Amino acid sequence: MKLAIEMARTTLGQTSPNPVVGAVVVQEGQVVGMGAHLKAGQPHAEVYALEMAGEKAEGATLYVTLEPCAHHGKTPPCADLVIHRGIKKVFIASTDPNPLVAGKGIKRMKDAGIEVEVGLLREEADELNQVFFHYVSTGLPYVTLKTATSLDGKTATVTRESKWITGEEARADVHQLRHTHDGILVGVETVLIDNPSLTTRLQGEGKNPIRIILDTHLRTPLDANVVIDRKAPTWIISGKGANAKKIQELEKQGVLLLQLPSDELALSSVLSLLGERGITSILVEGGATVHGSFLKSRLFHQVIVYIAPKLIGGKEALTSFNGEGFRSMSEVEQLEFKSVEMFGRDIKIVAVPKESDS
Amino acid sequence: MKLAIEMARTTLGQTSPNPVVGAVVVQEGQVVGMGAHLKAGQPHAEVYALEMAGEKAEGATLYVTLEPCAHHGKTPPCADLVIHRGIKKVFIASTDPNPLVAGKGIKRMKDAGIEVEVGLLREEADELNQVFFHYVSTGLPYVTLKTATSLDGKTATVTRESKWITGEEARADVHQLRHTHDGILVGVETVLIDNPSLTTRLQGEGKNPIRIILDTHLRTPLDANVVIDRKAPTWIISGKGANAKKIQELEKQGVLLLQLPSDELALSSVLSLLGERGITSILVEGGATVHGSFLKSRLFHQVIVYIAPKLIGGKEALTSFNGEGFRSMSEVEQLEFKSVEMFGRDIKIVAVPKESDS
Repeated sequence: MKLAIEMARTTLGQTSPNPVVGAVVVQEGQVVGMGAHLKAGQPHAEVYALEMAGEKAEGATLYVTLEPCAHHGKTPPCADLVIHRGIKKVFIASTDPNPLVAGKGIKRMKDAGIEVEVGLLREEADELNQVFFHYVSTGLPYVTLKTATSLDGKTATVTRESKWITGEEARADVHQLRHTHDGILVGVETVLIDNPSLTTRLQGEGKNPIRIILDTHLRTPLDANVVIDRKAPTWIISGKGANAKKIQELEKQGVLLLQLPSDELALSSVLSLLGERGITSILVEGGATVHGSFLKSRLFHQVIVYIAPKLIGGKEALTSFNGEGFRSMSEVEQLEFKSVEMFGRDIKIVAVPKESDS
Repeated sequence: MKLAIEMARTTLGQTSPNPVVGAVVVQEGQVVGMGAHLKAGQPHAEVYALEMAGEKAEGATLYVTLEPCAHHGKTPPCADLVIHRGIKKVFIASTDPNPLVAGKGIKRMKDAGIEVEVGLLREEADELNQVFFHYVSTGLPYVTLKTATSLDGKTATVTRESKWITGEEARADVHQLRHTHDGILVGVETVLIDNPSLTTRLQGEGKNPIRIILDTHLRTPLDANVVIDRKAPTWIISGKGANAKKIQELEKQGVLLLQLPSDELALSSVLSLLGERGITSILVEGGATVHGSFLKSRLFHQVIVYIAPKLIGGKEALTSFNGEGFRSMSEVEQLEFKSVEMFGRDIKIVAVPKESDS
């Protein structure tokens, strides 16, 4: 099962909107088949593993990180294939998160006389698919907030200089983060000030997520990098007052314009909109006002902070979460640190809301 | 030598202005004597260890964390005692940092025919006495800046509520920090807003450092805890315009008033003043303006930051280092992380200025 999980892990970021899944077939102590789901529309992990095993699947044991499906989607049900190939015993790590589907694959295999055990390394397997599970069960994207600050919590000097706070290793890790999310979300202020490309720059191949700009009054310049560079799709979410002519001009550049029927962009509406359009995860890269809004509305599932060995100082220097903030200590968002590690000369901290089920 | 260092470590915070020192006497593979310097004015580590060894010191090996002294201070020179007791070989970890004294103890012992080896576990031993070494070589106190913030770098909410950012374990660790410094320094704003006692609250015994208030215009209230509670000495450093009557009233309460001949308190003058009065180390606990001044003048040797698993948010919320700050990224203070560890639910980060010799 460890191998199955490792195989699934390598496909993180490429299977959306599907989960990552790994499968291993073992016959008399020998691995005879292994596979992973690579991309939506392509065969499931079990199919590859059973194909590789061929006749040796007869009487063998299957280890699979996620309950085999029992429904006809883009591919035939895997549970049927497992039965058909004569598998004798199946170990499953995670059950299907969709309550309407959960257990159906297991039931079908059990009915066919296969011994099924559920829960082996479940925690590890669940964590791999936390994004998928969240999306399937809520219809909303999984939200990661990302910031990079000095040891005194600043994101720029008093003169707004911010290049670079963190070192190369941490910045490379951000590109890995982009690769594993469906969308990158920033506020229009970030576009106006930094004019970023928001693409994934990784050695070898990296997936470019969709670039999503929160831009109530449609202030994104027509010559912004995200508009003209055509390196990845760009979506702009505006409010109801957005200028019709500007909308047309941006659409001519290939930008997708999404309009909310309100003057202010409520984040819950933004997330619903993105979920409806198949975005299972977003990486929120700021600026501070956007981070502050996600914080205040408590609409996030993970916070990743890179801390650089620097002190910037300055009462007027920018910090990572602005906006209103919480007024009393009893209201402030309580987190739990999941990991703390060195990344080059910087520290990377991953935290999740306390008592969150993510 | 490891034992000698461990013995020295347990006396951190109680030997000032002297260094911590541990000594072990070994005769034919058996430990026959051990000792540590406990307090200024009391016998040195070598004396205790040689006393315990008694006649067995004859022909034995001495392991000592710091070069034995060769001068008559409050106690006779240890180098002479080592010679007198017939020690055959001496291992020394750190040499004496005082350039006028360094090597004299070693020379005296070598002249007497004792084999001397220097540098065993020097790095560990040097680190134990970094405060002492800094003070002896510069005449100025070793400065530790301490802050506690949320993951977004805030020290209080927009309404100035700050109790408590960090958990019990981190707060207990601060008391350990106080115990190991000669003085705690805060700005008068901290006294006015929080009215702290600034005492060491440890299980068992803890040393109360001297409480030092930077208070240019002598605004410290006569009924402030640091003035009336008599739990530790309080020193107030004011500028030249301080009100003479207020000075008298505070002195009547037992407070020591130190006046600088200027309108603004230059930190270099403050540190000189404290060094002259025998303060070898200070723990700067804030507020943000005081931290900002130490940062801007780059007059510190260590930064300790506790980060709590909380997000406070708010553009107007307090951060840990205020003041002017640095204007460009090329000017910002470059640090090096020495350690990152969990303290209960919080993270403790220790950093030092990059390329610092501390």
